[in-house]
Amino acid sequence: MTQDEKFMLLAIEQAEKARELGEVPIGAVIVKDGEVVGTGFNRRETGKNALYHAEIIAIDDACRRLGGWRLWQCEMYVTMEPCPMCAGAIINSRIKRIVYGCCDMKAGSVKSVIDLFELPYNHKPVYEGGIMAEECSQMLSSFFRQLREKKKNPVDNIDTK
Amino acid sequence: MTQDEKFMLLAIEQAEKARELGEVPIGAVIVKDGEVVGTGFNRRETGKNALYHAEIIAIDDACRRLGGWRLWQCEMYVTMEPCPMCAGAIINSRIKRIVYGCCDMKAGSVKSVIDLFELPYNHKPVYEGGIMAEECSQMLSSFFRQLREKKKNPVDNIDTK
Repeated sequence: MTQDEKFMLLAIEQAEKARELGEVPIGAVIVKDGEVVGTGFNRRETGKNALYHAEIIAIDDACRRLGGWRLWQCEMYVTMEPCPMCAGAIINSRIKRIVYGCCDMKAGSVKSVIDLFELPYNHKPVYEGGIMAEECSQMLSSFFRQLREKKKNPVDNIDTK
Repeated sequence: MTQDEKFMLLAIEQAEKARELGEVPIGAVIVKDGEVVGTGFNRRETGKNALYHAEIIAIDDACRRLGGWRLWQCEMYVTMEPCPMCAGAIINSRIKRIVYGCCDMKAGSVKSVIDLFELPYNHKPVYEGGIMAEECSQMLSSFFRQLREKKKNPVDNIDTK
């Protein structure tokens, strides 16, 4: 297992925490010098907050733990391609490298809809997609399949709302 | 004075709070049905956090006050054109209309570097720039002028660091 896969597995563990809450399973970790300095998982619905994407929560965590807004020497591992808000937060926090799992055709802003990291902002993170993409993508499709089944059979839904 | 100018004046008051802390003076307010439901001002340096832009703090405030992540019926007034993180957060929170003051040639992501609101994301806010642009812009240039003067005369700088 490569270093990238090792840390992506930790991001997948974070995504699993989102799934347990009934949230779309997306997770992120931020790593500095081989140590995890920030973690986050999507909790937009339970947190009732548009900002609560995995990446934003992980950046907030890392800024608090490291005591500053510049995450120069940090890498982020996230299970799905970041949306424009999160890609922008990655630029603003000066994270040096991003590794993501599967693509997001609807809102992905590193490759799918646009590549924000190629525009002339004042920081350009290095990035790599497709690391453990299959695992990250299956976790999402299985979540949405279950959600559709629950909607078809509302009686099974009693404990989840 | 128009409604837009009235609310932009409140955003300028928020920016003034940033200036008092020695932060780049940028402010934002979120308005629903003519009432302010969220306020924020830039405090990236004193808050030691890359996420603490005026718009993000205002969206966080509005989600908390309104108790949900969808700010459908809300408008945002912000003194400077939003960066990609904040433009993305505006898309994610479904804010219906944005009014900004001056442009940001370096990171503005509604017009200057790119127009994120024109890309095929799942929400397209209506927006208008240039409202009280002169006031918003002068506040920034005066802040940076004073900063340069302080750097030239470090003895005057004792109370600010």
